[in-house]
Amino acid sequence: MSLSTLRVRFAETDQMGVAHHSSYVVWLELARVDWLRERGLSYKQMEADGISLAVSELNVQYRSSVSFDDEVSIESQLTEARSRRFCFSYCIRQGDRIVALATTVHTPVDGSGRAIRLPVQWFEKLQAAARLQTR
Amino acid sequence: MSLSTLRVRFAETDQMGVAHHSSYVVWLELARVDWLRERGLSYKQMEADGISLAVSELNVQYRSSVSFDDEVSIESQLTEARSRRFCFSYCIRQGDRIVALATTVHTPVDGSGRAIRLPVQWFEKLQAAARLQTR
Amino acid sequence: MSLSTLRVRFAETDQMGVAHHSSYVVWLELARVDWLRERGLSYKQMEADGISLAVSELNVQYRSSVSFDDEVSIESQLTEARSRRFCFSYCIRQGDRIVALATTVHTPVDGSGRAIRLPVQWFEKLQAAARLQTR
Amino acid sequence: MSLSTLRVRFAETDQMGVAHHSSYVVWLELARVDWLRERGLSYKQMEADGISLAVSELNVQYRSSVSFDDEVSIESQLTEARSRRFCFSYCIRQGDRIVALATTVHTPVDGSGRAIRLPVQWFEKLQAAARLQTR
Repeated sequence: MSLSTLRVRFAETDQMGVAHHSSYVVWLELARVDWLRERGLSYKQMEADGISLAVSELNVQYRSSVSFDDEVSIESQLTEARSRRFCFSYCIRQGDRIVALATTVHTPVDGSGRAIRLPVQWFEKLQAAARLQTR
Repeated sequence: MSLSTLRVRFAETDQMGVAHHSSYVVWLELARVDWLRERGLSYKQMEADGISLAVSELNVQYRSSVSFDDEVSIESQLTEARSRRFCFSYCIRQGDRIVALATTVHTPVDGSGRAIRLPVQWFEKLQAAARLQTR
Repeated sequence: MSLSTLRVRFAETDQMGVAHHSSYVVWLELARVDWLRERGLSYKQMEADGISLAVSELNVQYRSSVSFDDEVSIESQLTEARSRRFCFSYCIRQGDRIVALATTVHTPVDGSGRAIRLPVQWFEKLQAAARLQTR
Repeated sequence: MSLSTLRVRFAETDQMGVAHHSSYVVWLELARVDWLRERGLSYKQMEADGISLAVSELNVQYRSSVSFDDEVSIESQLTEARSRRFCFSYCIRQGDRIVALATTVHTPVDGSGRAIRLPVQWFEKLQAAARLQTR
């Protein structure tokens, strides 16, 4: 489990006066990158190595809204790690209140966007990170 | 069924060289608004009446990527219309190629964000529109 | 001169109930790409050739606001075309009302972001386009 | 002077592989809000009081680019404070390197977007904050 925090930006609000639902999708990405970083894995380096974890599925359940300047926390965890498929789950909170629950599924792709098996050096690091997480 | 078209903006791409997955979420919204407009229903007017169709669930299956300047089409349809719950489904295409499939669930809320029963004048219009669609 | 039109997206609004000022910056980019396209120049192709017109200066004067679903038009024109410097100016309107005036300055850069002289084949096309414009 | 820091989000990059120039505009806003907060002024509260500091002018000079996951700092300061006009200036840096210089001009507006004189209780707080800054 990893915990990210952020503050809702004014630009992320819409005319309903709350954070637009597409902003949450950006926050999930930020939480994934933090999850990797906290385990010594740099998504920037992965991209530099020509590998991306393309999003193949996205599910979000919006429970309540958040407003400009609110502090939001995101719990994220890796729930599946295979060489061709990675899954993350997330819980977005404001204080104790659950704002949204989400899951994403990822496919490793190469620089030209073709689905690949995650190269072994990255795969082993991710699996080790996943094991650490569950202990 | 309603058909929206758009061209991928440069700002919507990311460093993978394709449209960022959060952009699709914005496109779905645009398609919903078009769906309503084509049936004589103005989402702008609905908001002016103090009613929003807040997104309570979002599901996207990403099948393939699209690039800057690509023309994308989005088929959208209302699949459920109750006074407290509306569902839309979408198919995003580039030419014949399916780019993504998506569904959204919506809850009518008032100006302060509280879930409401959709006022009858709007509900009847939406149901009439839904009937027209299925004929 | 080139004319682009667009409709303000819901996601582009903020809690002031109007299009967020950063959205205009995205619209200017879209107008530049249209300007090029109307003259037979594909910015997508330029990027595929490893050349980008990086923004080095941006000036926007916001005169009035625009709301969700408003139709907006953008007049754009190339005002300077040198091998290392390109300038565009823009007028954003809603109907007859001027919404914003803007200028951008661009530097040609290569794939690694280094400033370059625009390759001659592209430079000649741009200059020819600029001449056409002023006739 | 106030100092904000942020990390470039993946969603903020474009296909040139660097942060899109419109992202900087969002960062400036975030820096303004921080400037106010550090002086005990809540922009959220100002908005709740029905007052916004609408952007009337924006100038950005882009000096160099920043990449995904880079840490960026933004120095911001209030440079002019009149009842109908506020100016901020900014310096965006990555480490010691200047990434961009920017200025914004703001007009106080009421909830319906009409230009107003900033109410005296807010104006005095802002002027006191501006004085503190220059000491």
